Amino acid sequence: MTEPSPSKPPRDRDAIRARCTRFLTRQKPLSPKETLQALADEAGADEAADVYGKGKLIEDFEAKVASLLGKPAAAFMPSGTMVQTIALRVWCDHQGVSTVGLHPLGHLERNEAQAYRTMHGLDAHYLGDDTRQFVKKDLEAVAEALGAVVLEMPLRPLGCVLLPWEELVSISAWAREHEIPLHLDGARIWESQPYYGKSLAEIARLFDSVYVSFYKGIGGLAGAALAGPKDFVDEARLWQHRQGGRLIQLYPYVLAARKGLAERLPQMATHHEAIRRVADALRGLPGVHVTPDPPQATSMLIALPGARDRVEAAVLDLAEETGIWLVDRTMASPIQGITLAELTAGAGTLGFPSEEIRNLFERVLHRIA
Amino acid sequence: MTEPSPSKPPRDRDAIRARCTRFLTRQKPLSPKETLQALADEAGADEAADVYGKGKLIEDFEAKVASLLGKPAAAFMPSGTMVQTIALRVWCDHQGVSTVGLHPLGHLERNEAQAYRTMHGLDAHYLGDDTRQFVKKDLEAVAEALGAVVLEMPLRPLGCVLLPWEELVSISAWAREHEIPLHLDGARIWESQPYYGKSLAEIARLFDSVYVSFYKGIGGLAGAALAGPKDFVDEARLWQHRQGGRLIQLYPYVLAARKGLAERLPQMATHHEAIRRVADALRGLPGVHVTPDPPQATSMLIALPGARDRVEAAVLDLAEETGIWLVDRTMASPIQGITLAELTAGAGTLGFPSEEIRNLFERVLHRIA
Repeated sequence: MTEPSPSKPPRDRDAIRARCTRFLTRQKPLSPKETLQALADEAGADEAADVYGKGKLIEDFEAKVASLLGKPAAAFMPSGTMVQTIALRVWCDHQGVSTVGLHPLGHLERNEAQAYRTMHGLDAHYLGDDTRQFVKKDLEAVAEALGAVVLEMPLRPLGCVLLPWEELVSISAWAREHEIPLHLDGARIWESQPYYGKSLAEIARLFDSVYVSFYKGIGGLAGAALAGPKDFVDEARLWQHRQGGRLIQLYPYVLAARKGLAERLPQMATHHEAIRRVADALRGLPGVHVTPDPPQATSMLIALPGARDRVEAAVLDLAEETGIWLVDRTMASPIQGITLAELTAGAGTLGFPSEEIRNLFERVLHRIA
Repeated sequence: MTEPSPSKPPRDRDAIRARCTRFLTRQKPLSPKETLQALADEAGADEAADVYGKGKLIEDFEAKVASLLGKPAAAFMPSGTMVQTIALRVWCDHQGVSTVGLHPLGHLERNEAQAYRTMHGLDAHYLGDDTRQFVKKDLEAVAEALGAVVLEMPLRPLGCVLLPWEELVSISAWAREHEIPLHLDGARIWESQPYYGKSLAEIARLFDSVYVSFYKGIGGLAGAALAGPKDFVDEARLWQHRQGGRLIQLYPYVLAARKGLAERLPQMATHHEAIRRVADALRGLPGVHVTPDPPQATSMLIALPGARDRVEAAVLDLAEETGIWLVDRTMASPIQGITLAELTAGAGTLGFPSEEIRNLFERVLHRIA
């Protein structure tokens, strides 16, 4: 195996991944052709298309999501970015306050091109920092009015970390006492539920509104929902229209979400066990850290001793040699010489014995040494 | 046949329509199951999913749309509402002026929940009125700075009316002279092209940016594109992200648009002839007006002498008796006793001889008399 060299053309990561046959992280993805065939099979012969958000197919699914989360209503929208910006806009309009409490590493701040600020004229009061989720004490220290507080569960950039249940309860009680709407970025609430051992509705009850995603652990095509009080959700639908998310037909996304929820939600506890088993297999490998340890949701970060280009090259080499795709992605860390790799337990993970997992990472370590 | 009565439960329009076997307007729609099967067939076995707007499938389609319109770049987005608000925001940011010239019956004003005002802080200077599209003289009368001008082609609420080519050329020249970006709401540019007998690129050349839709005449699932200069389109993509339209996967919509463009675009001239043939068949029926006369795009309005509830009931009665679906929708008009019905030529229209069309409307007239 040759060393990675800056003069070589960049390797086609997607093509290498597409040729893999086994996936330690998640599972082998379906092609568009396979997915559309599965959705054609999922659709009932008598099911009619939704029209601008109306129709039995989409309304039944929204009712099911609302019921799972124990909320009066839910609206299906094309993306989480749409749901999140709208939730904040509506709560801040209600409160007459344009500053939102949120985490500086959260999705709203890092992955939505500052939509809440540039598009809706809101601003942020940061809670927590680059090393930890915020807690109730951070809220108590806020010296300005807040139109809403967003809690991201789990907080992905730190390895999908979760707060202890008692801390969540305290944050919720604080928000109610101060009459500040508490919004849950629950894109991965499905993946968080096994850690708490509470029902989805028990978790959602701590929050005034909840965003959930259907394409991450649930495996849909795209799509999200916003659940909360009926008048809040109705107002959110108006903004969905304004932001351009009231599509004439959303049924491919709804069908994919429906199918994913039925098939994958019952697997989350198994995947929660699986990510812990992967962490166990890696524990003690020289220079390797898993974070959080033990994993809390169904993903974790693996800190590997090596520069990112070497780790990335080692993962691609292994994929080409073995047909095994190891991790979702590799990322630089703030610590020179340590690279982070994200791994998410899924159906693919279940096919790997612990010893094989350890051996695969030993091969990676050997290459990057 | 019983008279429509306010005490009867409302009839299920969608169910009656779904049972129809022949469609004078457009064509018999496919079910979600049929559509998804057709899309599974359309997808190549080796075609990979797009990821957040990247990938050969979506990029090739965007390049094709840009090429058709003779523009340097095009971005695929989930909806026209998203495209239109973004186009105005970007042009107005460039110009440093927040007032947009637009028609008071246009889609931006009537069908987008005032997104351009409430979300982007823009405002409107109305051009034209409820009886006519605006012309160059209306622009010359504007006494304030404009950040952009939007022209809707065709203007649907007046029967999909089109301006004469020379008027379009004058408007374009005026906008360039005054350095005001001219944006085309070309949701139905495909349906407008046969009237002008110019290529799509020749039409688009008069405008700085062009919005096109893929679900109307093209028959896709949803989806739109914004075409224009590359830096403008790149900036629009940033707003697409902010508005929540940068979906992890858009391929069902892209495949449907690709299929529709290939199959339906070559039919537009035939449909343009067909709508004129329908107008010819109706001309001279007592109390009936078609508008515009002759039709210009592939749709027209038919003014019928009767109150809306009677016209609607007659259309539904006819559908139940004959299995024929006659018009897209019925609408009240500003003139008491006249109801408007919209009809769009499509594959279904081609199966009706002129005499049958006339007879069908005679039956409707008989019922509403």
